[in-house]
Amino acid sequence: MSFDYKIADISLHEAGRHQIRLAEHEMPGLMSLREEFAEEQPLKGARIAGSLHMTVQTAVLIETLVALGAEVRWASCNIFSTQDEAAAAVVVGPQGTTDDLQGVPVFAWKNESLEEYWWTAAQIFAWPGVDEDPTVGANMILDDGGDATLLVHKGAEFEAAGGVPSAQEDDPEEYRIILETLRQSMTENPQRFTGIASTIKGVTEETTTGVNRLYQLARDGRLLFPAINVNDSVTKSKFDNKYGVRHSLPDGIMRATDVLLGGKTAVVCGYGDVGKGSADALRGQGARVIVTEIDPINALQAAMDGYQVAQLDDVVDQAHLFITTTGGKDLITAEQMQRMRDKAIVGNVGHFDNEIDMAGLAKIPGIKKVEIKPQVREWVFPSGGSIILLSEGRLLNLGNATGHPSFVMSSSFANQTIAQIELFAKSHKGFDGDGAYLSDVYTLPKILDEKVARLHLDALGVRLTELTKDQAEYLGIDVAGPYKPEHYRY
Amino acid sequence: MSFDYKIADISLHEAGRHQIRLAEHEMPGLMSLREEFAEEQPLKGARIAGSLHMTVQTAVLIETLVALGAEVRWASCNIFSTQDEAAAAVVVGPQGTTDDLQGVPVFAWKNESLEEYWWTAAQIFAWPGVDEDPTVGANMILDDGGDATLLVHKGAEFEAAGGVPSAQEDDPEEYRIILETLRQSMTENPQRFTGIASTIKGVTEETTTGVNRLYQLARDGRLLFPAINVNDSVTKSKFDNKYGVRHSLPDGIMRATDVLLGGKTAVVCGYGDVGKGSADALRGQGARVIVTEIDPINALQAAMDGYQVAQLDDVVDQAHLFITTTGGKDLITAEQMQRMRDKAIVGNVGHFDNEIDMAGLAKIPGIKKVEIKPQVREWVFPSGGSIILLSEGRLLNLGNATGHPSFVMSSSFANQTIAQIELFAKSHKGFDGDGAYLSDVYTLPKILDEKVARLHLDALGVRLTELTKDQAEYLGIDVAGPYKPEHYRY
Amino acid sequence: MSFDYKIADISLHEAGRHQIRLAEHEMPGLMSLREEFAEEQPLKGARIAGSLHMTVQTAVLIETLVALGAEVRWASCNIFSTQDEAAAAVVVGPQGTTDDLQGVPVFAWKNESLEEYWWTAAQIFAWPGVDEDPTVGANMILDDGGDATLLVHKGAEFEAAGGVPSAQEDDPEEYRIILETLRQSMTENPQRFTGIASTIKGVTEETTTGVNRLYQLARDGRLLFPAINVNDSVTKSKFDNKYGVRHSLPDGIMRATDVLLGGKTAVVCGYGDVGKGSADALRGQGARVIVTEIDPINALQAAMDGYQVAQLDDVVDQAHLFITTTGGKDLITAEQMQRMRDKAIVGNVGHFDNEIDMAGLAKIPGIKKVEIKPQVREWVFPSGGSIILLSEGRLLNLGNATGHPSFVMSSSFANQTIAQIELFAKSHKGFDGDGAYLSDVYTLPKILDEKVARLHLDALGVRLTELTKDQAEYLGIDVAGPYKPEHYRY
Amino acid sequence: MSFDYKIADISLHEAGRHQIRLAEHEMPGLMSLREEFAEEQPLKGARIAGSLHMTVQTAVLIETLVALGAEVRWASCNIFSTQDEAAAAVVVGPQGTTDDLQGVPVFAWKNESLEEYWWTAAQIFAWPGVDEDPTVGANMILDDGGDATLLVHKGAEFEAAGGVPSAQEDDPEEYRIILETLRQSMTENPQRFTGIASTIKGVTEETTTGVNRLYQLARDGRLLFPAINVNDSVTKSKFDNKYGVRHSLPDGIMRATDVLLGGKTAVVCGYGDVGKGSADALRGQGARVIVTEIDPINALQAAMDGYQVAQLDDVVDQAHLFITTTGGKDLITAEQMQRMRDKAIVGNVGHFDNEIDMAGLAKIPGIKKVEIKPQVREWVFPSGGSIILLSEGRLLNLGNATGHPSFVMSSSFANQTIAQIELFAKSHKGFDGDGAYLSDVYTLPKILDEKVARLHLDALGVRLTELTKDQAEYLGIDVAGPYKPEHYRY
Repeated sequence: MSFDYKIADISLHEAGRHQIRLAEHEMPGLMSLREEFAEEQPLKGARIAGSLHMTVQTAVLIETLVALGAEVRWASCNIFSTQDEAAAAVVVGPQGTTDDLQGVPVFAWKNESLEEYWWTAAQIFAWPGVDEDPTVGANMILDDGGDATLLVHKGAEFEAAGGVPSAQEDDPEEYRIILETLRQSMTENPQRFTGIASTIKGVTEETTTGVNRLYQLARDGRLLFPAINVNDSVTKSKFDNKYGVRHSLPDGIMRATDVLLGGKTAVVCGYGDVGKGSADALRGQGARVIVTEIDPINALQAAMDGYQVAQLDDVVDQAHLFITTTGGKDLITAEQMQRMRDKAIVGNVGHFDNEIDMAGLAKIPGIKKVEIKPQVREWVFPSGGSIILLSEGRLLNLGNATGHPSFVMSSSFANQTIAQIELFAKSHKGFDGDGAYLSDVYTLPKILDEKVARLHLDALGVRLTELTKDQAEYLGIDVAGPYKPEHYRY
Repeated sequence: MSFDYKIADISLHEAGRHQIRLAEHEMPGLMSLREEFAEEQPLKGARIAGSLHMTVQTAVLIETLVALGAEVRWASCNIFSTQDEAAAAVVVGPQGTTDDLQGVPVFAWKNESLEEYWWTAAQIFAWPGVDEDPTVGANMILDDGGDATLLVHKGAEFEAAGGVPSAQEDDPEEYRIILETLRQSMTENPQRFTGIASTIKGVTEETTTGVNRLYQLARDGRLLFPAINVNDSVTKSKFDNKYGVRHSLPDGIMRATDVLLGGKTAVVCGYGDVGKGSADALRGQGARVIVTEIDPINALQAAMDGYQVAQLDDVVDQAHLFITTTGGKDLITAEQMQRMRDKAIVGNVGHFDNEIDMAGLAKIPGIKKVEIKPQVREWVFPSGGSIILLSEGRLLNLGNATGHPSFVMSSSFANQTIAQIELFAKSHKGFDGDGAYLSDVYTLPKILDEKVARLHLDALGVRLTELTKDQAEYLGIDVAGPYKPEHYRY
Repeated sequence: MSFDYKIADISLHEAGRHQIRLAEHEMPGLMSLREEFAEEQPLKGARIAGSLHMTVQTAVLIETLVALGAEVRWASCNIFSTQDEAAAAVVVGPQGTTDDLQGVPVFAWKNESLEEYWWTAAQIFAWPGVDEDPTVGANMILDDGGDATLLVHKGAEFEAAGGVPSAQEDDPEEYRIILETLRQSMTENPQRFTGIASTIKGVTEETTTGVNRLYQLARDGRLLFPAINVNDSVTKSKFDNKYGVRHSLPDGIMRATDVLLGGKTAVVCGYGDVGKGSADALRGQGARVIVTEIDPINALQAAMDGYQVAQLDDVVDQAHLFITTTGGKDLITAEQMQRMRDKAIVGNVGHFDNEIDMAGLAKIPGIKKVEIKPQVREWVFPSGGSIILLSEGRLLNLGNATGHPSFVMSSSFANQTIAQIELFAKSHKGFDGDGAYLSDVYTLPKILDEKVARLHLDALGVRLTELTKDQAEYLGIDVAGPYKPEHYRY
Repeated sequence: MSFDYKIADISLHEAGRHQIRLAEHEMPGLMSLREEFAEEQPLKGARIAGSLHMTVQTAVLIETLVALGAEVRWASCNIFSTQDEAAAAVVVGPQGTTDDLQGVPVFAWKNESLEEYWWTAAQIFAWPGVDEDPTVGANMILDDGGDATLLVHKGAEFEAAGGVPSAQEDDPEEYRIILETLRQSMTENPQRFTGIASTIKGVTEETTTGVNRLYQLARDGRLLFPAINVNDSVTKSKFDNKYGVRHSLPDGIMRATDVLLGGKTAVVCGYGDVGKGSADALRGQGARVIVTEIDPINALQAAMDGYQVAQLDDVVDQAHLFITTTGGKDLITAEQMQRMRDKAIVGNVGHFDNEIDMAGLAKIPGIKKVEIKPQVREWVFPSGGSIILLSEGRLLNLGNATGHPSFVMSSSFANQTIAQIELFAKSHKGFDGDGAYLSDVYTLPKILDEKVARLHLDALGVRLTELTKDQAEYLGIDVAGPYKPEHYRY
């Protein structure tokens, strides 16, 4: 575990700086926040432990947090997703050289092992002196998927229990590694995470999975500090999912296969926000789109938007392309894949790779896997027919393209930044005014959600209309917003 | 006030029956409910006082309520909106002739005076014998806009106060008439509405305005019975507003003006659901659409959907068509109308006619109003230029076309019907099980919202996918739904 | 035959003037020509015999011809299509009153008999004094469908033969009437049409049918004067067919049925220009569109545009709406109509009513026809199911709506006007310079086609880019056009 | 010049075979022709000299020609465009190994020098024994851009003149090399191209440029053999240009920049087929599209399709993206690029790189060019702002993505193949029946154009409707087509 980005290759650093400069241009939300808060420094005193894919866009986020006064330590939340040049660029700081080792401590590289991954997760809490005095350690978490939050909660739990339990027979491999990481920690400092937990003012979390864990902790009364659910901001969920995928789905398919989408028949499994963005993108390329749905409301929406809504079994032998978008599992079974047209393309932009029954596919006797190119495999059935499977069923917009564009991430990350500011200022750990955030899960106030949107308008040339005082009174709202009731669906 | 549909012209009746038969075909939600509940008769014992536009679609609703066991009395909620043939058709019942006067008592005709209007509102509570025994009177209200609910609440309030107050100098004309109506009522029976209010188990309400009044009453602790807010069901707000207007906006403009929409520039003021449907319809006709917005989130959505978002002042002299969609006021001022292209078309599909500054327009010195045809007027400015104003600024899809199509109303009315069933069964006035509805405002449980959608799928040929038990468990939901968390935005 | 519009009701006249004023605003092509040629008067000396639907738009055409110096006599080309107020408005001239009987002689009224129709056709050639001196009669024909041209050619033919033949057993009724009309003419003047034909410099014709007759005459060497085929100008065929129908198809369906198009499945038979406009309009309303085609190129276009392309038999029981768009016959058979969903809507925007097998439908034993409203009939099958047939299979955009909007007609009529100018100036009957038009069929030079487009840009706010001399040279074209080779397809 | 693919690396060969197998699946036009003509062998005896980009798709074309009986020699028509694996795959034949050196002689590799390029062009005519007996040499040319045709014509011309002229001062460098190539040829055989020209039955050519040269030769009476203009088949021009670019434009931009297209404003210069496909693709990604046009007809089409049509100068400072699509030059000037938004993206999918004024850009004093990645350069103005220029102004869909997808090329190449069959059978050099092709330029008969479309329907699941005999007679066409008149525009 000798990795140290402080001696990173300067050329990697420069390549990263280059990309960061271009990304900044497409992240007006973050850049506006830097400008707005340049003087106020609302994150002065914040020590943020960040766990989020270490990409070029995240580099812009990190440097925004720093620009607002924060100290930051960072790890990736995924073993594959780090862009090394982004990490290298951040380590030594915007104006840095390798002589000037003053950058942000980043613990992330492409293709970590699971052991390395949990070591990096521990490093973002290893602030100098924290073992002696927890109050000099991290006081904020910025999380994606909840691993950083998990480490603190499990650590504190085991420390209270006086020891780390043994792994059970059927515990997943990764859980064993977590237990081992914490066992090692307790040998070093048996109250480390207890101290850290007491110092932390809150966490901001941006994924469905992470948010669900938080709600569960809160429901069970075990949440140790306040949390802001960034995932359900309109400017996160509606934008990231729908408009991000509209871009990155065709991008991924095109890069992977170079197959003309026009004139083809595509099945989109699911018509949530991701499904809506997918269907829209494919129709925009001249494909005929058929939707499958389990929810009658979304199914009715798909029909009203002009799509055929069918059961997969009825159309599986007609379509050229199958995309899962749901978060569910076994949307497409191995049996169904065998009934597809020869060389049908199958991919997932939903969540886990089990939306497509990869396991069942691999078990078909006599099946062969041919690598067309990285992340593009042809699975040849014994019958002779084949399908083209993208990214092994994992997110194809990440695996075959470059994921969400910067502009979309700007919206998500502006939510993160604003949530950090909000929570750092008003956590009940240190704030006793009205509206203190208790150890519960909150969404951002609508007015801040609106603010995130507002920060992205100028870059698009959007000119917003301002309510007159008279009009606002008539509507019973404030000129400055919020403009809609909480339950408004957009 | 001698109107009596029981002696309605039989040819009017037959014309109405004809249209009802066709509308039934396009209202699968209501027809499915008739079938589902034919035996159970869940509304047996319900005496519903209905106040809702007396159209052909409403006739299908009324007959659905009757088919489910209810007794019904009906008035329109608008002085202009009654379709006389629909009223005539219902009065004498589905199989009726004028000899067989067994139909639903309907108190509604096209072009009522305000006095007549409030007289009809009172009639829906005038059940035979109710003055002697309130418990034989209406026990449910089905409301659109809240006038029936208002009458009961104001009546009970004044009866408790021992008298109806005098109108104040600045009370609107209509309020004087309401007071007079109630004054007359008190002379006939000083406890009439007190009795009625005590009998009523609840109200179901489908408009924003009506719902707002209900929330206010509930907040002030003055709501006399439970209420279900039907307006905010997904299958009401998202469908009625967006997909209904997508149909009826171009329909209205075309019928009114016969002007080619293709190639023209249209400004849509507002990008809520109504604005989204409007913009989509106009783009679908080949118009270039420019959106104006006050809410940065909706503005960002408009931009992401490919529309220019501008301030009206910057484009007012370029566009050929201006449509307001908001519920606000003074979206388009008289001054702006003077700067429009000659013969620009101006109309409203939002809410009240004050979205366009009609009052200001009329006050321009020297302005002339030329009737092109009913509901289409050219306003000629002293400068010589003119604009074409549709429906005098009132809802053009109602004034220049026929409003929402039956299919859309089927969705709204299935919500009403299901809400009536739910409330009639579980109002705290007569139900002491778990989940009783108290005197508060509720939205329909999501599973019933999903049910409404479900009832409309077959007619469109939609084939829904069913979750397996295994998939449902993985998602932590029930196979039968509900499928989404409450805050899901669709 | 005592009809005389010169004593037309002044209120009818005024209603017509009103509509003409509004139509002028939407017909920038014609209005620009009036302005451009106000001084030059290129039609001075032209005496135009016009035969074209006597609508409000045609009134604007007529007055444009007059404004350019022409004398005009007019009849309709269809017994049903005259708008009486348009005829009345034109008769007495733009500034006219009934005291001032100086208007254009118009011989047209709504619902003519066939005898009346051919009488009016003869009247447009009955210029004062023409029997004495043919050279004071009509010297130009403006035709729609070719009836005026037919009358002259048949007249001259029979006059040369010395008599009108008897009708044969199987001649259609209408042909008998034509023969009778000409027989009567020969008793009055045995050389009338011979004289007229010798005077006429040419005809401009705007329909496929009329153009086909002209090509046949030319092929047989029997065409008596030059003809310009206006139908195949890009600004006629591509605009009128595609963009006109995109507007008037949904308009017609909505007015006829008030049925929601969103979510419905629609079959569009044919994917020529009319089919393209139809499919586009229905998709724009949220319908799912299925196309049927016989031409593999158009079928491939439909697929590339994202539509399912199927055989009617395979989808006839699934769709809610069926629209024919082809000019062929028996696209939808009576047998297929019996297999449709209950209350499926069937209509035609192609050409004749035989695109739908109306005759076969009427012959089904036990079938019943129920009039829903004018031009909307429900055909009830013995089985109990029914379909809704629009306009008895005739053009539904004319029968259920108001046909093409003014803006589209402006493009077609600007072609007519420019063709009249061109032919009047350069017919070989009176012009011996280069480029004289011989007795053959021509299309308008591309530069004039481009000119028609040019005349419509300002009204839409289109700003055209101008080639530099250098750029034009590089492309080998003239700065002023024409810009494309003849075979360019747009 | 020792290049010999016969000793090509077997792994390169295998990679190519792999890609060819996948491409075959997307090229149903070519594969159907192989099947249809497997027995008949219509190209038996044909010796084809092919000059066309040596890509994977071309490999499928070559092997189709061989499967139909032809012998083939091949060179690329561009110094950069060869995919070496495709060349290597073809050299040794479909079932080949390096032991089996029986493949097609291919003379092409990525990044040829101009000298090498013209050497390869000469090699495709160097059939064994041709210098002794011209009749054993090439008897057909398949051309893309006209270089092979040029070499033969210039060669024969100089041989007739008795020598190759000296290059003039201002002749382009490439012309000197052509002269040198021919001078060398004459030293080897002073009648080589005279013999070849006499043997060649015809050429099929698929580009605008090549076709223009052919028309010029024909006009001047110097065309030495018949030519078929494949470029203007509907299934070439309308499909390749519109649907190919709809795919490859967003593909190229996304790969190059990863910038979100949704919400951005894009200017598309030109609204021909390429412009139409571009605008459609960008709108499909949620961009707002503004069109510039010089041709009023196309401008009107753009307006009718809902696009703003503006002059570039008026919007140059507002848009985020600028795409040229025209074939013209100086569409975007250096001065205009300086007025763009910071980091605006500029690219070309039209024709040559001079659509964008690259030369002018490079001359701006103080301008800097920063390589972001291959084919993506940031040009930084002295003012500090910059633009992102794709592929140095050359075709970005080739430079930043992989050009047209196989399915589109299948349509173009099926036209080539059918034209080869047609011309080989019916060239006046060897055919004296009706319909012989003389030394002129022809387009494919419409029925063959329809055939190409037909070959692509099954793969898309399109089900074509067949005319009945009765319907065909009514329309005056044959059941089997052709279905449209020559001037039909699709």
